[in-house]
Amino acid sequence: MDKIEILGLIAAALTTSSFVPQVYKAWKQKSTKDISLTMYLFFFTGIVLWLIYGIAIDSLSMIIANAITIVLSFFIIAAKLKYK
Amino acid sequence: MDKIEILGLIAAALTTSSFVPQVYKAWKQKSTKDISLTMYLFFFTGIVLWLIYGIAIDSLSMIIANAITIVLSFFIIAAKLKYK
Repeated sequence: MDKIEILGLIAAALTTSSFVPQVYKAWKQKSTKDISLTMYLFFFTGIVLWLIYGIAIDSLSMIIANAITIVLSFFIIAAKLKYK
Repeated sequence: MDKIEILGLIAAALTTSSFVPQVYKAWKQKSTKDISLTMYLFFFTGIVLWLIYGIAIDSLSMIIANAITIVLSFFIIAAKLKYK
């Protein structure tokens, strides 16, 4: 695997894992007032398209990163709807 | 431009623009308590790497999308630091 692909995997790991602390904070504090629902609805839709894009270009790292991000952003949307 | 690239551009437009409502909400309400700083620091770092990756593979859409996302996530981090 060349250096550029390794860079892509590290970038994917960082941007994907970054949602974990937000999911944790939202569900632990049961407070999501400051989180923008509009952002996460747009973001979620975009990530679904990135997943389809990743499948279309047969990029395993994009498929994995976006599949995980879809699940994580779903939990943030769920927390936002539950704890207005 | 083929259908897959158009899909990528739409995905990039959605995920990039999704941060605008969060920037607006944070600065308008002057309240960021529910926003995870850890998330945005990880995310910001990841997006910088995605920008370098986009430059390395000469992908204009990745360069534009990630450059804009860097600016938008910077404003969210700034709001988080200013309005603990």
